[in-house]
Amino acid sequence: MTPPLLPALPPLLDLAGTAVFALTGALIAARLRQTFVTLCFFALVTGVGGGSVRDVLIGVPAFWLRDPWVAPVILATALVVWFTPHRIWDNRLLEWADAAGLAAFAVLGTAKALAFGVAPVPAVILGVLTGCAGGIIRDVVAGVPSIMMRPDLYVTAAALSATLTAIFVYLGMGDWWSWAIAACAGFALRGAALIWHLTLPAYSRDT
Amino acid sequence: MTPPLLPALPPLLDLAGTAVFALTGALIAARLRQTFVTLCFFALVTGVGGGSVRDVLIGVPAFWLRDPWVAPVILATALVVWFTPHRIWDNRLLEWADAAGLAAFAVLGTAKALAFGVAPVPAVILGVLTGCAGGIIRDVVAGVPSIMMRPDLYVTAAALSATLTAIFVYLGMGDWWSWAIAACAGFALRGAALIWHLTLPAYSRDT
Amino acid sequence: MTPPLLPALPPLLDLAGTAVFALTGALIAARLRQTFVTLCFFALVTGVGGGSVRDVLIGVPAFWLRDPWVAPVILATALVVWFTPHRIWDNRLLEWADAAGLAAFAVLGTAKALAFGVAPVPAVILGVLTGCAGGIIRDVVAGVPSIMMRPDLYVTAAALSATLTAIFVYLGMGDWWSWAIAACAGFALRGAALIWHLTLPAYSRDT
Repeated sequence: MTPPLLPALPPLLDLAGTAVFALTGALIAARLRQTFVTLCFFALVTGVGGGSVRDVLIGVPAFWLRDPWVAPVILATALVVWFTPHRIWDNRLLEWADAAGLAAFAVLGTAKALAFGVAPVPAVILGVLTGCAGGIIRDVVAGVPSIMMRPDLYVTAAALSATLTAIFVYLGMGDWWSWAIAACAGFALRGAALIWHLTLPAYSRDT
Repeated sequence: MTPPLLPALPPLLDLAGTAVFALTGALIAARLRQTFVTLCFFALVTGVGGGSVRDVLIGVPAFWLRDPWVAPVILATALVVWFTPHRIWDNRLLEWADAAGLAAFAVLGTAKALAFGVAPVPAVILGVLTGCAGGIIRDVVAGVPSIMMRPDLYVTAAALSATLTAIFVYLGMGDWWSWAIAACAGFALRGAALIWHLTLPAYSRDT
Repeated sequence: MTPPLLPALPPLLDLAGTAVFALTGALIAARLRQTFVTLCFFALVTGVGGGSVRDVLIGVPAFWLRDPWVAPVILATALVVWFTPHRIWDNRLLEWADAAGLAAFAVLGTAKALAFGVAPVPAVILGVLTGCAGGIIRDVVAGVPSIMMRPDLYVTAAALSATLTAIFVYLGMGDWWSWAIAACAGFALRGAALIWHLTLPAYSRDT
């Protein structure tokens, strides 16, 4: 593998995305009346799951093994959820934060894959996985219907951000601004889906 | 790791196996009335899941990150399923195609593992995983009973092909013909199970 | 990655842990009335699942690909379960053996992660995953409620062993005796939970 061309997403944004996903994981465990240890576990797999899947498929060590901030952020998130009534999180704010994390991770995942020499289409797929795989693992282990099974424009928003990122890099525009645009586009699409309840059509060819 | 001794299975056969498994993934999503994006996701995890599990366990990048054909084949398969009534796939043809993919992947997975210096018994296990893991991930994410839980001669057919491949390589016969024989043997066993409804006995020691 | 500083846990203890976890996997398959091939599969994923997750996250080949003993031990365990009535295993002995495996794997996983240069907190997390991930994969594929969802002091015991291991290494005491102490502490906590039915409090902030 080529040496990593460090993705230029501001580290704070990256950590914020991890925290948001960790929050959704800890909350699902809280709603299922689990213990603090289980809250930590779900915060972990949801927060770092997508990036870990990306990294093991690329063939590099998982990003959170050497980052001194990721694990403390996960733990702090689980503590916050443990000491607050879960109803205060039951609002649109969480969905909007999740949308921001989804878009940021899709861009970051695609950029990291391209930096390691992955071909464009697989890089877009890895970007989508970075945004979505944490939630899928969370749902599978919790035994609840997977986010993949909902008709929301969710994965599609991640795909938009990832595709734009790959196009910008291909056009030689792989700088911070182009990635901000790619992230905003996915965030806007997910936001539109949240406001107007946009869904994709379901398969219905039965005849 | 030693440099890869490229498996000699014809790339077209390899791609055909990916397409067949992607087809079974897209069809399960169609039967669950999912969206096109979800069809693509299931085509992806079923088509490349087995080979990805093999590659990350060996410690190399997933094969589809550098192959320019795998991702387009997955997408094309999802498109075909999306635009056709799923009943036309509801037949024996699909099961026979799946049997061919299973046998081909078991041989390919074992050969790749051996080429990377994996010991014979673990290489056979990796070959079986290459054939079966995609279907297992598909079933777990879809929330349907896993293929592992059926008494069919399914995993056993993959084990036959993988074991023969390892034996042939051990005997210094690791060429294209020996692998074709190994694949045909597994395919024939799976075919016999389909025709005569062969099953393995279930555990029944209760006393 | 730095070259591996081989963990000093006696290989026999390591194999014994693998066998115990493989046993719990094969038994769940037997209770679900599965075939011998499925027993082998569950013995495999439960016995080597935790260590495999650890290794792919670190970015090294899975440990059982080069170990000549792991695969035969898995197979032998499946054979033993297949030929015995499962009721003879239905006792406290199995839970105590599982507790020993859990503690040993948590120590071994943490030590291996530290030896590869992983930071202390992520190393503790990898140790916990080494002890628990095999059981989680087993439960998810079998479709039974996950071990994560029970209020037992189970993950907590693994966390105790892993944390002590990291502290001992940090203090420059990373020798065989310190690891034995770390393993015994986790084993004792799990044992206390088994004897006195200790559980963690569940989340209950509803107001």
